[in-house]
Amino acid sequence: MKQTEKMKTGESMPLTEVLAALPFNADGLIPAIAQQHDTGEVLMMAWMSLVALEETLERGRVCYWSRSRQKLWRKGESSGQIQVLKEMSFDCDSDTILMKVDQTGPACHTGRRSCFYNVVKGDRVEVVAEPLIDPSQLYGK
Amino acid sequence: MKQTEKMKTGESMPLTEVLAALPFNADGLIPAIAQQHDTGEVLMMAWMSLVALEETLERGRVCYWSRSRQKLWRKGESSGQIQVLKEMSFDCDSDTILMKVDQTGPACHTGRRSCFYNVVKGDRVEVVAEPLIDPSQLYGK
Repeated sequence: MKQTEKMKTGESMPLTEVLAALPFNADGLIPAIAQQHDTGEVLMMAWMSLVALEETLERGRVCYWSRSRQKLWRKGESSGQIQVLKEMSFDCDSDTILMKVDQTGPACHTGRRSCFYNVVKGDRVEVVAEPLIDPSQLYGK
Repeated sequence: MKQTEKMKTGESMPLTEVLAALPFNADGLIPAIAQQHDTGEVLMMAWMSLVALEETLERGRVCYWSRSRQKLWRKGESSGQIQVLKEMSFDCDSDTILMKVDQTGPACHTGRRSCFYNVVKGDRVEVVAEPLIDPSQLYGK
C-alpha cells in the first residue's frame, strides 16, 4: 500500500480504495492470519476472497474461502467454534491480512486451540498440544 | 500432516519426513509468519522455498524467498535487521509455517516494527505506527 507508507500515525485512506486495490492471487484469494486478541496466540492461517473479506467486515465474524470445498467458509458454521473479529489490519504491501479475533474454543479442525501444534525440535517434529474437544463432537461425525 | 493429527503431546516424527511432504505451491513456496517470541506481536508474513527453510533451520537465522527479486532473502542482509529463530512450527495441514523470532529493530521495509500497521477503523484504513528508523538509513539510499 504505497499510499500509506509515508503517512504519519493517525492518517488514513478510504477502506473502499484499499479493498479495490488488494493484490488477490490468481485464484482471487489473499492470506489471512487469525490471532487471539488477548493472548497473542496465532491460531491459524487461511484464505479470503473479496466477498469473504467484505462479509467478515460487515458481520464482525470471520468468513474465509475454503479452497478444498470451493465455497465461503463461515468459521464455526458446522463446529460452533466462531471467530469474532476484534481488529483487522493490512501489511505494508497489503498482500496479507492480520485479524485479531476472539476464538470460541478450538480454532483447529483437530480440536486443538491453535493449528500450529507441530513444533520442530532438533531433527524431530513434535506434537505440543492436546485437543480441547474431540473432533467427532465438533462435527457430529 | 495427517500423521500427527491423532498423536498425543510429546509424540513426534522425523523432520526429514515432514520437509519431504510439505505441500509447496506451484511456485515451490510456502507461507511463513514471523512472530516476536516474547511480545507475541505478528511482524510479517513472507514466503519460503525448501532451500530457504532448510537454511533457516540450519543457521537459526530466518531466510525467505523473495518473490520480487527471485532469490534467497536473508532477512537483514541489507538492513542489518535480522530475525533469530526461536521456534518453528507447522500447522495441521502443514501448508503454513509459524516462526517465533527475535527481531532486531524493524521487521518492515518502511522502518516500522511490524508490517501490519494499516488498521481498519470503520470506513477508513488508518496508519497506527511510526517508523523506528528512517528507511533511507536502513538501506543506505
